[in-house]
Amino acid sequence: MKKTLCLLAAAGGLSLSAAPAYAQFNKPEDAIHYRQSAMFIMGNQMGRINAQLKASSPNIQVIQSSAALAEVMSKLPFEAFVPGTETGGTPPTKAKPELFKDTDKVKNLAEKMQTEVAKLNVVAKGGDVAAIKAQFGDVGKSCKACHDDYRNKE
Amino acid sequence: MKKTLCLLAAAGGLSLSAAPAYAQFNKPEDAIHYRQSAMFIMGNQMGRINAQLKASSPNIQVIQSSAALAEVMSKLPFEAFVPGTETGGTPPTKAKPELFKDTDKVKNLAEKMQTEVAKLNVVAKGGDVAAIKAQFGDVGKSCKACHDDYRNKE
Repeated sequence: MKKTLCLLAAAGGLSLSAAPAYAQFNKPEDAIHYRQSAMFIMGNQMGRINAQLKASSPNIQVIQSSAALAEVMSKLPFEAFVPGTETGGTPPTKAKPELFKDTDKVKNLAEKMQTEVAKLNVVAKGGDVAAIKAQFGDVGKSCKACHDDYRNKE
Repeated sequence: MKKTLCLLAAAGGLSLSAAPAYAQFNKPEDAIHYRQSAMFIMGNQMGRINAQLKASSPNIQVIQSSAALAEVMSKLPFEAFVPGTETGGTPPTKAKPELFKDTDKVKNLAEKMQTEVAKLNVVAKGGDVAAIKAQFGDVGKSCKACHDDYRNKE
């Protein structure tokens, strides 16, 4: 039997982006998978940028492509941190219980990250490696700020 | 000990998109997670479009947003179907062994899907629900064509 979760009513709890309130996930595991997927792709793209920034001749096109994709991804995860998705998932969610309680603080952290990633995309288009490195660092800090408090290590 | 997979040398095997050959994954599981993530987000967006198309008053903006995101996602998975990633993953990959052998056929199926999803994005912008429904059906066929032969059901 298919377990259906109506997240419509719950979506007001942690609306961290411009995502539509009628966004739907068929079951809690789908919401967890969705946010994990967006986070993973974003992290992968950040890794690609990092690799280029460490290279002797950074490939600016790779950096630009990954920064653009990271910005798209940055907007996705937060509509999926909804009540009923505190545990579960394959692999299990690393979200700490506090994430679902400190909604204002998490909202601010998420928006800060989204702002920094958007800036990275702008700076990447400029092609100045030193400026990209600096902004990449700021993005990293904005990720860490949330992960430190709201994501379990393992 | 961290197991590192150099996919650089292997990337020529199944290069199904314009993805850079220097795309990197730290380990096979990361490649599997990457393609699963992109597929899942794409499927979720297709579900959102489908829900709107079934609604009495489809929300065109939701359809347009999801179609745009689906197009971005459609370009991601295929660089990650590389040798060494035939098994493994959490959850385990559903890719059939044949996917890694029938490279030309899979490449054609992937490109067909990407073309149909790109068309959906164009048609969605036009706002004609009947046209969107028709193209949505064509996208579904292009997904099914590959899944039937190359994805395990469970």
